[in-house]
Formats: sequence, C-alpha cells, structure tokens
Amino acid sequence: MLCNGGRHRAGRLLVALQQWRQAGGVTQRDPRFSVVSDSDLQFFESVLGDTGGVVTDPHELAPFNKDWMGKYEGAARVALKPKTREQAAAVLRHCNERRLARGVGLVPALSLLQGGNTGLVGGSVPVYDEVVLSTAAMNQVLAFDAVSGALTAQAGCILENLDSHVAEHGYCMPLDLGAKGSCHIGGNVATNAGGLRLLRYGSLHGSVLGVEAVLADGTVLDLLTTLRKDNTGYDLKQLFIGSEGTLGLITAVAIHCPPRPSAVNVCYLAVPSFEAAQQVFVAAKQQLGEVLSAFEFLDRESLLITLRHLPGAKDPLPSCQARRTARRGPLSRAAPLYVLVETSGSSAAHDGEKLGGFLEGVMAAGLVLDGVLAQDGGQARAMWHLREGITEGLRHRGAIYKYDVSLPIGAMYRLVEDMREADWPPIRVAGYGHLGDGNLHLNVSAPAYSEELRQQIEPFVYEWTAQHRGSVSAEHGLGLMKAGCIGYSKPAAAVAVMRQVKAALDPRGILNPYKVLPLPAE
Amino acid sequence: MLCNGGRHRAGRLLVALQQWRQAGGVTQRDPRFSVVSDSDLQFFESVLGDTGGVVTDPHELAPFNKDWMGKYEGAARVALKPKTREQAAAVLRHCNERRLARGVGLVPALSLLQGGNTGLVGGSVPVYDEVVLSTAAMNQVLAFDAVSGALTAQAGCILENLDSHVAEHGYCMPLDLGAKGSCHIGGNVATNAGGLRLLRYGSLHGSVLGVEAVLADGTVLDLLTTLRKDNTGYDLKQLFIGSEGTLGLITAVAIHCPPRPSAVNVCYLAVPSFEAAQQVFVAAKQQLGEVLSAFEFLDRESLLITLRHLPGAKDPLPSCQARRTARRGPLSRAAPLYVLVETSGSSAAHDGEKLGGFLEGVMAAGLVLDGVLAQDGGQARAMWHLREGITEGLRHRGAIYKYDVSLPIGAMYRLVEDMREADWPPIRVAGYGHLGDGNLHLNVSAPAYSEELRQQIEPFVYEWTAQHRGSVSAEHGLGLMKAGCIGYSKPAAAVAVMRQVKAALDPRGILNPYKVLPLPAE
Repeated sequence: MLCNGGRHRAGRLLVALQQWRQAGGVTQRDPRFSVVSDSDLQFFESVLGDTGGVVTDPHELAPFNKDWMGKYEGAARVALKPKTREQAAAVLRHCNERRLARGVGLVPALSLLQGGNTGLVGGSVPVYDEVVLSTAAMNQVLAFDAVSGALTAQAGCILENLDSHVAEHGYCMPLDLGAKGSCHIGGNVATNAGGLRLLRYGSLHGSVLGVEAVLADGTVLDLLTTLRKDNTGYDLKQLFIGSEGTLGLITAVAIHCPPRPSAVNVCYLAVPSFEAAQQVFVAAKQQLGEVLSAFEFLDRESLLITLRHLPGAKDPLPSCQARRTARRGPLSRAAPLYVLVETSGSSAAHDGEKLGGFLEGVMAAGLVLDGVLAQDGGQARAMWHLREGITEGLRHRGAIYKYDVSLPIGAMYRLVEDMREADWPPIRVAGYGHLGDGNLHLNVSAPAYSEELRQQIEPFVYEWTAQHRGSVSAEHGLGLMKAGCIGYSKPAAAVAVMRQVKAALDPRGILNPYKVLPLPAE
Repeated sequence: MLCNGGRHRAGRLLVALQQWRQAGGVTQRDPRFSVVSDSDLQFFESVLGDTGGVVTDPHELAPFNKDWMGKYEGAARVALKPKTREQAAAVLRHCNERRLARGVGLVPALSLLQGGNTGLVGGSVPVYDEVVLSTAAMNQVLAFDAVSGALTAQAGCILENLDSHVAEHGYCMPLDLGAKGSCHIGGNVATNAGGLRLLRYGSLHGSVLGVEAVLADGTVLDLLTTLRKDNTGYDLKQLFIGSEGTLGLITAVAIHCPPRPSAVNVCYLAVPSFEAAQQVFVAAKQQLGEVLSAFEFLDRESLLITLRHLPGAKDPLPSCQARRTARRGPLSRAAPLYVLVETSGSSAAHDGEKLGGFLEGVMAAGLVLDGVLAQDGGQARAMWHLREGITEGLRHRGAIYKYDVSLPIGAMYRLVEDMREADWPPIRVAGYGHLGDGNLHLNVSAPAYSEELRQQIEPFVYEWTAQHRGSVSAEHGLGLMKAGCIGYSKPAAAVAVMRQVKAALDPRGILNPYKVLPLPAE
C-alpha cells in the first residue's frame, strides 16, 4: 500500500492510480457493465429529482470521485443521494433490472459511497465510471431508547453528531475514530470500523443491534430491531458488517450505546522492550480491570518522526529521551517503546486510585523506565495528539509504504524488527498501533518511491503475517487495493463460501465491483 | 412451548412428542433421508472404531436420543463421537456423498448433538432416526494466550472447566449459564447462548474470535484465528454462531476472555412497578457504570411459586412481604416486583462505595420499597438461587406453557399484564428474566394441559411480540419446536436469504434436519 509524500504529488498520483487498480488485479474496465445513458439519468431524476438527489455537475461530482487522501480517483458521471430507503431501493432495482431488459453488458455498476468517504483502501470511490450511491442525505436519527441505550439512525448520520445526541442522555457511542467529525455510521458499520474504543466496548459485531439494508435487486431487508438477544435463525445482519458495501446498501443501523464515562485519565510510559510492554498490558488488565479503555503503543522511530513533523507535538517525557541520548546504552535501536494507557470510568476518585496502584506496581516491578500522568484534559489531549498524529507526521517522509495488520500480541512487534533486519535498500521502519487489540500499523519509508522495493516489501509483510495467522487488513478492509490479498488471511474454502454468499445476494455483481471479491468471469 | 409437571409424566410425554413435531410442521419422517445401513456402520467403525467413537448399544444410545428435560425423544440407531476434526470431516463427507453414489433418498441425516445436550427447544436431539454426531470426545484445550486472553478449545469442552482453566491466569469466560457444569462451548456458540453475563460482556457475536467448522460435504472451514480485528472479507464465523448446527459442525472455537473480577456484590430490591424497575436500571447504569454485571427481575407470582416449591429458597425481604400482606394495599396484583442487581469489579472497596451511592440514590428517589445487600458469598448465592431456581420451582405447577421472548424494555412487562387480562380459562402468569437485556421468561400455568388453551396462548404471545418488534426466541433458538415461528420475528425477505445461505452450505439438507429452516420440497 502506497502513500505519497507532499512534494511531486501530481506525478506520483498517476503511479498510485495505476498501482491501485493493479493491486486489485484490475487492468481494464469490466465490459459487462453498461455506460450510464440519458434514459438512466431521466429515471434517476424521476426518483430523486425533487429532493436534489442527482448530481451530474462536474464540480459537484469531483468529491465523490476522489477519496479523502487524494490517492484514488474514479470517473463517475453521476452520483445519487437518496433520502429514504424507498428511493434507494428504486435506484438499485433499476440498475439491476436493466440487465434483464437489455441483456448482458447494460448494468450500471454502483459504487457505494457510504457517506463520509473516509476509507483508506479505496473502498468508497468508483474505480471507473460506476454510479455513485451516497447515503449523505439519509441523516436522520430515528429513535433513541434512554432506558436500554439503543440508538436507531439512518446510515448517513455523522458519528460525532450521534455521539453528541446520545451524550444528552448520559450515553456514548461504542466506537471512536479520528475521522468521527466526517465519517458516517453506515460506513462505519459497512467497514466494521475498529478505532480507539474497541478494547473497551468490543467490535461492531457485538454492538450493532440491527441493520436495514437494500439488496442489489432493490429488496429491503429490514433487520432493524433493537433487541440484545434474538435467536431466530441466522444473524444475517452480521454479513453486512464489514462487507464494504458489496452485499447491500446499509440504509439504517441500530446500535447499543454504553453509559458515558464521567472520568477519563491518561498516562504515558516509556518501557524498555516490547516484552515489557506486554507485561504492562497484563498488569493494566488486572489492576485497572473494567476501567481500562485504551492501550496504545508507538516505537522510538514513530515518536521521532512525529515530534519532528507534527505541528504542536510535544515529547511527554523529554527527560527520559535526554537520559537515553546521554547514555547511548544497551537498549536496542527500537527501544525504548512508549505506551499510552487510558482509563474511562464512572468515578474520578476510584479510577485515580486504581491508576495510582497500577503505576506503582509496574514501576516497582521495573517494567517501566519512566512515566507521566496527565494532570488535566489539556495534557491528556496532547498525549493523544501525539499518538493519533503519527499518520500525519509520516506524510512528510518521502514515500511511505503503509500496512495495517493484526497479529497475536506476542508476535506483533517482531514483524517490525524483522523488517529492519531484512537485506533491502536503506529503509526506515516505524511501528505503532493498538497493542491491546494486537493491531500494528507498520510504516516503511524510503527517500523516493520504487516499484521494485514495493514488490520486495509487500509479499514479505503479507507472508510473515500469514505465517503467524494474522490479518493483512485489521481495520481498513480490502477495498480494491487489497482485494487480491484475501488469500493471505482467509483459506480458499472460506473465500469459496464468501463467493457463494456474494453470488446469492448480488448475482450480477453490481455492488461495489472490483472490490473485496472481484467479479468472476461468466 | 410445553413443559409438563412432575406427575403423570409418561402419559404427557407422548402428547409432548407429538406437539413437538407438529410445532415444527413435521408430520412424518422425510423419506428422502436413508436409513442407516450395515455398510454405513462399517464405514463409521473404520473411521472411529479405534477410539470407541461408534455407539450402537441401546442403553448407551438412550441419553443421545433424549433431551435433558426428558421431553423430546428420537430414534437414532447410532451416535458418533469423533475426537478430531479429520474424523468429523470423514463422517460428514460419507453421509453427504452417499447421495451421489446411490441417488436421492439414501442420505443419512445428522443430528448435531453439540455435546452437552442442554438445549430447551429440542434442537439437539434427533427427530426421527438421524445419525447423532456428538462432539463430547473433542474436549481438549488447544491454547491460551495469557497476554491477550484468547482461549482456543475444542467444541466438546465443558464451559465450567474452561472457566476454571482461564481462572488460573486471572481471566474468566465471557458467558455464564445455569448449565455450565454440563454444557459444551461448541453448543454454546452454535446456539448463541446468552446467559447471565451478557449485560456485562455482550453477546458471543462480539466475544468469539474464531470458529473451526466442518461443512456438510466434509470441507474443514478453518477460521480459528485469535485476532480481535480482521477485516478481510465477510465475517463468516458469525453465520455459525446461533445456526444451531444447521450450517456446519463447530469443532473448535477461539474466544476472548475478560479479566476475572475479584469482587462481586449482589443486592435485591423490591420496587413498586415495572416502570420503577426501569428507572432503577437507568440509575444502576449511571452510578454503577462499568461494574454493573447483572440486572434481573422477577414478579410476585414468580417469587411465590419459587418460595413454595424450590428447596432451600428463602425470601430475602420477608418483612417487605409481611408488610404488603398486612396492608393489602393499592399495589396491583403483580406489584411489587423484585430486582437483583450484581456488580463485578476489580476493587471490593470501590464497588461497595458505588453500590452504596446507588442504593442511597434510588431509596431517596422513592424508586425502591425495600432492599437488602448480600453481606457475604452465602447470601449472594441464596439470592441467585432464588432467581435461577424459578424454572425448577415452576415444574411443580401442573402444565406450564413457557415462552422466552425479547422485547424493547419499555414494553416487556406489558405482555405479562395483557396475558393476565385476556379472557381465557383460569391461568396464572409469571414473568421474570434479564431486564437489562430486554429478555422476558413468560410462564403460563394451568391445572392440566389443554391443546385448546395452547392454541389460544401461543398465537397471542407470538403476535404480541411481533407487533412490538420483539424476538419469539431470545435465548433458546428455534430448534424444531419453534422452526415454524421464524416469521414472527424475521421478515420473509430475511428468511429467503437464510434459505439461500442454507442451500449454499448444506445443499442436501443433511445437517440437523427439520430444525430452524425446514427442508423445502424438491
């Protein structure tokens, strides 16, 4: 996966686009999909015209064709913004039925922009000229049950707005992402977003109570109940969570919201090794127990990059750094590592006491070189700013090859170390991520982009991950970029079953084509 | 759903068996399934004989043919107990392939006894003469990661044994059931067991990390990773969670274990109404926050039955009862209701303080008539004994019609009240369950069993539940008993998709036939 630096952007963008399609095994537009015709546009106008839901003006279309990073760019001629599930169903039925009416090759394929277009693998932009179907206009909160904490909302609601909505009743959303100010709940569910609260509240497979989805043929699948327990047949909503819009268009979701924590504490610790970081994690689980809400880590390389390039970044432990520099001691190149530990609970006094006991324990056990506890919200935000800003900092480092893998925790940092020891041209490797979730963000930087280098790095990372039974896409999905990589994390038998599911739900392959599971030849 | 009292059991059993099959729309054995032949037995012996995995002795077979309640009884001629996934795959492949070799009508169907045979809807016993495939001999713990808390175990491991295993490392299983001493983890996952810890740790859809399943054709689907995040394609393991063995045989699972709480507190409160119980629940979520681990309720009818019939049951609030009797006051027939609130946390002192604050708050707000806090483990167990023993107590009440529904919390107790007001022959209605999960156990008792009464009660309960978008089977699955009732909780479009999934994974319908989704005509 390739991310370009700030300079010479335009030139590199062409390379990226080509890479993007090739990585998904796509070398040409699938000729079985039709080109959108004037009569199609007339039909779309008849359904959505009254509410201004048909976008064809090139300037207005541009944001739908480009992803937020500016890396991927499609050539859609029209974007549609239904306001209701009935409108979405009418559009999908039309696109699907045209094949029947006019034979193979006349189906407008759909790129399901779930709304926020904040994905990282090119999952939400058209690859060629697919019709863009956006849920941005479906942005109504449908219900909130203040006793159970069940929120029901249309897919286009912005995550942060929903969090504010439930906050009025003492609840919070069970997920939190850097993109919360623009990402949409439908897209979160469609991509099974993980984020910063997963350690505490678990994945969306556990929090999502109900889903309303429109299938490729326009059938509305109403699974929008708010029940925590329901064992009547197969739990079909689970299929849509993480399917990246390839099985249906999610139009609404019901989600279980936990009580909003009233007290949040953050501390930042330097540890001598990844082994020590793991022991600190175990101690945190034992002593912080139910209030532990995040356990993140970054290595020294990530820290140095971020301190250099991220505006406003400050080293929370400057003296620790200074001591280390002065000593130039026996620590390995990567050490020390840094961990960020967060608690969220219902009592500031209790949480503070627990955190104090935890810190004393890990200090006494010699697991920690140094540490600092945020004294107020500002200091806590500064620590999170450092951790969350690594991505931004990395943008200023020439060509960056980015990977988002998950691994058994014991193995996860060895991948970074093995990368550093490989016999490649000079590269720098930075590792950080959600230690508590076994989720490593691996970043390799080189002075300039080289296709040859990419072809060395990529199989190494994916094969290493496969050998350790990891996932080559922990959080970000497959999109187009990684559609060809599914075999690294899923056995052939599983991919075969996925194809059966896809064929059953979207037999003509019109939903987000080229992505996740490329359309087989007919 | 029918449960018979203790007396005249044998006579009633016949009625129950007939009811059982009829409720699933099954009036005769499906002639497309073959009878097990001697050559089948020889094949099974060749695969499993060395490890004693072929059971044909009638005495040894009896427990496989009867469910634990003694209500449902099949006529299997053979039960198989593979020790490995390879043995399970060989058996399944044989049963599936015979159809190819000898034509339609020669497939031995399989009843997947996931092990413990502790189900409540006749999901785990053969309906006629299906081959029983039991995972009881697959009882090895495969791995435990003490850093992440990921446990990997074969399907036949007993839940309580697994809980003891992880306790040594400071963890607990994320589910707890009354049947924990005999139910198997594979069966828990296959039926999506809820139980007593769901409020705290969420459903198995969130806790299960990986599943290994053998499909009908003998394909091993190895999705047995221990990752908390993996977005590579559709999350197929979710399909097996709650599929009641109809999509494949679960042979192993990986599950995320939370840190074991070191402090548990229980209190028992009398509240004047279900409305007040809901307000107490909201207060508990706000003030107990992250340590709230159970919020159960029982009504007066349930309490009186249990006090009368359950050995060792004691009223935790005898004075409250006495006061009420003396007063014969304005409370409705059902009031007061009783709630059991449990906290589990990592600090006894902190939890005790939180609980004290909560109790003061709800008392001061007039939400609680009376309450008692367990002073030690013995008192806490006695309170749980009362709540968990209601099922046992009910067995002594003539004929009992039992329903396990989930509903939006605000509506759940109105079903009990509406049942009491219906114009039926004299019945008594008891309601209790997991208030925090919106899960009501509804029990109707009459002096003697009457088919006419059942035909009045059942549609009323199911239609009422459907009108309120509830589930007609919150915890117990559909089995055979409720296979015909799926339409009350799932729209036709969803059932159609389920059929597609079933057809893709088990095209010959050999897995747990007659259950969940009856086999369509060919």
